[in-house]
Amino acid sequence: MSSVLVWIVYDIVEDGVRNRVAKQCKKFGLQRVQKSVFLGRLENNRFDELGEICRDMIDEDTDSVYLFPFCQEDFRRINVLGQGFDRKLVNDEILAKFF
Amino acid sequence: MSSVLVWIVYDIVEDGVRNRVAKQCKKFGLQRVQKSVFLGRLENNRFDELGEICRDMIDEDTDSVYLFPFCQEDFRRINVLGQGFDRKLVNDEILAKFF
Repeated sequence: MSSVLVWIVYDIVEDGVRNRVAKQCKKFGLQRVQKSVFLGRLENNRFDELGEICRDMIDEDTDSVYLFPFCQEDFRRINVLGQGFDRKLVNDEILAKFF
Repeated sequence: MSSVLVWIVYDIVEDGVRNRVAKQCKKFGLQRVQKSVFLGRLENNRFDELGEICRDMIDEDTDSVYLFPFCQEDFRRINVLGQGFDRKLVNDEILAKFF
């Protein structure tokens, strides 16, 4: 079973829904790097599964969720500017696991 | 010169800065798909150049910009939920160019 590096970025209106999506991302072993941004590595089927779970949770008329899959090569070229990583949430040691 | 498919996602506090970054993304030929989200295809050097331009524009203490590069294979697996595409900004015909 191959895995994929992922970034999950969301814009969710209701606090309760947003917290439940964040909880799911954590449950899937992803690392929070900003208010509405998680990253990590998932088995391919888990990436699809997380998408379905998020779809069921959100209000599709108001909320947006982007599930971005990356191969290692593209992942390394991601350019994160400014406060893209919230240093209160993530330090270099954690980031080194992925970059 | 090879090119790359890109998603640019940003969270920028000040309207003036946000508008200038959006203008640059349009100037680089990217398609706006949501308030703070653009996608398109860029030559590799243009991807790097856009990153530098955005870095110079934003307030790195308050704003975040993510420049995500994708090969075609990963790009096809992107999962966009809910209002990830603002149908007032982008229709199926435009999306078909990329997906």
